[in-house]
Amino acid sequence: MNTGNETVLGIDPGFARCGYGVVGKEKNTPVAYEWGCIETTPKTGDTPVRLLSIYDSIENLIRTYAPACLACEKLFFSRNTTTAMQVSEAKGVIILAAAKHQIPVFEYTPKQVKLAITGSGLADKKQIQMMITRLLRLSEIPQPDDAADGLALALCHVNWMRMR
Amino acid sequence: MNTGNETVLGIDPGFARCGYGVVGKEKNTPVAYEWGCIETTPKTGDTPVRLLSIYDSIENLIRTYAPACLACEKLFFSRNTTTAMQVSEAKGVIILAAAKHQIPVFEYTPKQVKLAITGSGLADKKQIQMMITRLLRLSEIPQPDDAADGLALALCHVNWMRMR
Repeated sequence: MNTGNETVLGIDPGFARCGYGVVGKEKNTPVAYEWGCIETTPKTGDTPVRLLSIYDSIENLIRTYAPACLACEKLFFSRNTTTAMQVSEAKGVIILAAAKHQIPVFEYTPKQVKLAITGSGLADKKQIQMMITRLLRLSEIPQPDDAADGLALALCHVNWMRMR
Repeated sequence: MNTGNETVLGIDPGFARCGYGVVGKEKNTPVAYEWGCIETTPKTGDTPVRLLSIYDSIENLIRTYAPACLACEKLFFSRNTTTAMQVSEAKGVIILAAAKHQIPVFEYTPKQVKLAITGSGLADKKQIQMMITRLLRLSEIPQPDDAADGLALALCHVNWMRMR
């Protein structure tokens, strides 16, 4: 279904730091509308307050840009289950925000992101960041890293859809 | 702060099966108002739909019983991170529902639940279920197990507060 809306909200899920990037298309070229990092710390409140803050921020982005979909990093954890559980709680509320607004969620592994953006599944962080900067015609590498990751997820989805 | 409302919503968090129990107090005696299990399966929808269903069910319980707080099992996972992540996503949306309604969340380990209900941290599932049935003056052991776990969490909080 092509509604003409091709704006993608890319999310690098996190509990303390959640990166996001909004990428649309103008004249068939990807354009970055906004990027940033949702930060929560124990100082900003306990877990419920922090999850609510993440949820509200994602919902604000959805309301502002009305994205056609949300592209989120697929999480893998091999060791630290405490971190895995916290990040997953955050991911739960992010996916919920999308579901509430009936926006489909697509998940991509880090390797799929690298492949879609640089053409190589082995690209390093710096190469991805430089490629994002070029593809989105930005004057400098987006800061902080979390925001660049958010843009990478959005751009990954744009490229993945084009390749299909 | 004692507002006179001592109703507790107990939750045994889960993605496929999320147990709940609502326990209040009448004439200084704990009373079970409702218990059950929120079930989601791949047949009911994909992850966003399932998380939304859990969130909506919890929010309905909050709207119906206006609990003073939510008592939730503290999760521990040593091995299966895939399960840990799914359950944590569910827990994230459960905590979010509480936060949205400004209801404080208390977490208890399985050992704390056993201790608060039977007086022993070593009690088995059956002993806890029988103790819940007696304490809440129910005619039979609450079904399914997930619902009994939800009631146990709520009752644990009631007892824990009394002991303090």
